[in-house]
Amino acid sequence: MELWFTEKQTERFGITAKIKRTLHSEKTDFQQLDVIETEEFGNMLVLDGMVMTTEKDEFVYHEMVAHVPLFTHPNPKHVLVVGGGDGGVIREVLKHPSVEKATLVEIGGKVIEYSKTYLPSIAGALDDERVDVQIDDGFMHIAQAKDAYDVIMVDSTEPVGPAVKLFEKGFYEGIAKALKEDGIFVAQTDNPWFHSELVTKVYMDVKEIFPITRLYTANIPTYPSGLWTFTIGSKKHDPLEVEESRFHDIETKYYTKDLHKAAFALPKFVGDLVK
Amino acid sequence: MELWFTEKQTERFGITAKIKRTLHSEKTDFQQLDVIETEEFGNMLVLDGMVMTTEKDEFVYHEMVAHVPLFTHPNPKHVLVVGGGDGGVIREVLKHPSVEKATLVEIGGKVIEYSKTYLPSIAGALDDERVDVQIDDGFMHIAQAKDAYDVIMVDSTEPVGPAVKLFEKGFYEGIAKALKEDGIFVAQTDNPWFHSELVTKVYMDVKEIFPITRLYTANIPTYPSGLWTFTIGSKKHDPLEVEESRFHDIETKYYTKDLHKAAFALPKFVGDLVK
Repeated sequence: MELWFTEKQTERFGITAKIKRTLHSEKTDFQQLDVIETEEFGNMLVLDGMVMTTEKDEFVYHEMVAHVPLFTHPNPKHVLVVGGGDGGVIREVLKHPSVEKATLVEIGGKVIEYSKTYLPSIAGALDDERVDVQIDDGFMHIAQAKDAYDVIMVDSTEPVGPAVKLFEKGFYEGIAKALKEDGIFVAQTDNPWFHSELVTKVYMDVKEIFPITRLYTANIPTYPSGLWTFTIGSKKHDPLEVEESRFHDIETKYYTKDLHKAAFALPKFVGDLVK
Repeated sequence: MELWFTEKQTERFGITAKIKRTLHSEKTDFQQLDVIETEEFGNMLVLDGMVMTTEKDEFVYHEMVAHVPLFTHPNPKHVLVVGGGDGGVIREVLKHPSVEKATLVEIGGKVIEYSKTYLPSIAGALDDERVDVQIDDGFMHIAQAKDAYDVIMVDSTEPVGPAVKLFEKGFYEGIAKALKEDGIFVAQTDNPWFHSELVTKVYMDVKEIFPITRLYTANIPTYPSGLWTFTIGSKKHDPLEVEESRFHDIETKYYTKDLHKAAFALPKFVGDLVK
């Protein structure tokens, strides 16, 4: 018998992966949570039927969420990750020696629990002493925070279920208040092939709130279309004007100093979405 | 009833697309040729079970094959396309006013025939008066050509069936002879996620023959992993050192002047393949 997991990334298109077995399957208070062992991508975390991360390609997303804003900010000390219960973004954040504290606010404790069990190479960093894990609603956490963070990273699912609020303009206004005066935030903002209107909407919302707004992309094989966008809102520091001396060596598999800049060179049809 | 076409891009991973109907299906002398109407990507050409091109995302591949070498060469007059029977690369080549003649050598006449019928927005340019279509073996054509072309573009399938020869070092040696003294060539060279050894092999082969060798990438949703590589071999002109004045406005949906450079900034794990 062959078992295949298929994610319909749209109503009309999807990816399909041969699996060895299901490691865990549970309806949590917030989401359907599945962990499967695939042959091509290793262990894979699936929330509400959508691939969140896999052992083989996780580094792209996690590195590109973390390192672009962290190298843009001259001295990031306190970082907040909203969502990101698999721990991958936190792992990358901790590679920056200036970071004194990394707070993770994840709504679903089960995501953390099963990531630690089945994705240890990703989630292991959650046990670091610089990390403060809070099982809480990220939207509410942001609403109550003020002048608290140097960098905020929104590592959410697509706008489905509990993540819907994380794509609203009010959330970005809250983020602006939660950031320090030279703070910077980044959010994953889906793909321009199937959700172009979302890319445009978020960019325009962020642009009304932050003086510097930028869009960049990365290739993630298990995400819809393989081309993923990230939107940055920054109060002061421009990711396109990072001084050479700011970069320092860190161990990566995707991010490089050259790619930091190149990721902002958008395909024409993507650039047109945010004009 | 729902019909879905699934391409197993590896033995363990694939894409699946809902289709309205099969427009054509035929075993030619060289390949299994299918044209299907998909809901997400429009009409799709499939050779030996592999997606070759679709109406929705074809522009990425065709623009990135054509415009990177054509803007690198200061005055490309005669261009050869090996393969590419769908006509998409030729369409992009003809956007360059310096091009006086574009020769297409395609082994399968049926590919051209059915592309004209079912992919007219892609194949229409094949009827242009500057185009010379030859139904012939690209490998043999290259073996017999000498000092004939400014730019050669290898638009083949993956190394399966008739395309196997087009990934051999002897073919690249032939290309070097077929090019003029300041000629440049580009080939599609598969993806670094599932065929990393092929990316390395081609790059190293080309590097032994051409003084300038470069690798660049583009995002193609319907190709394996979404991250596609292209390898350039050049006798004189470096794609990374194109003068600003060389660029002129052409209508594109993916290629831009900035992306021309950015496409060569490789993800670390890809750069490591060609070190």
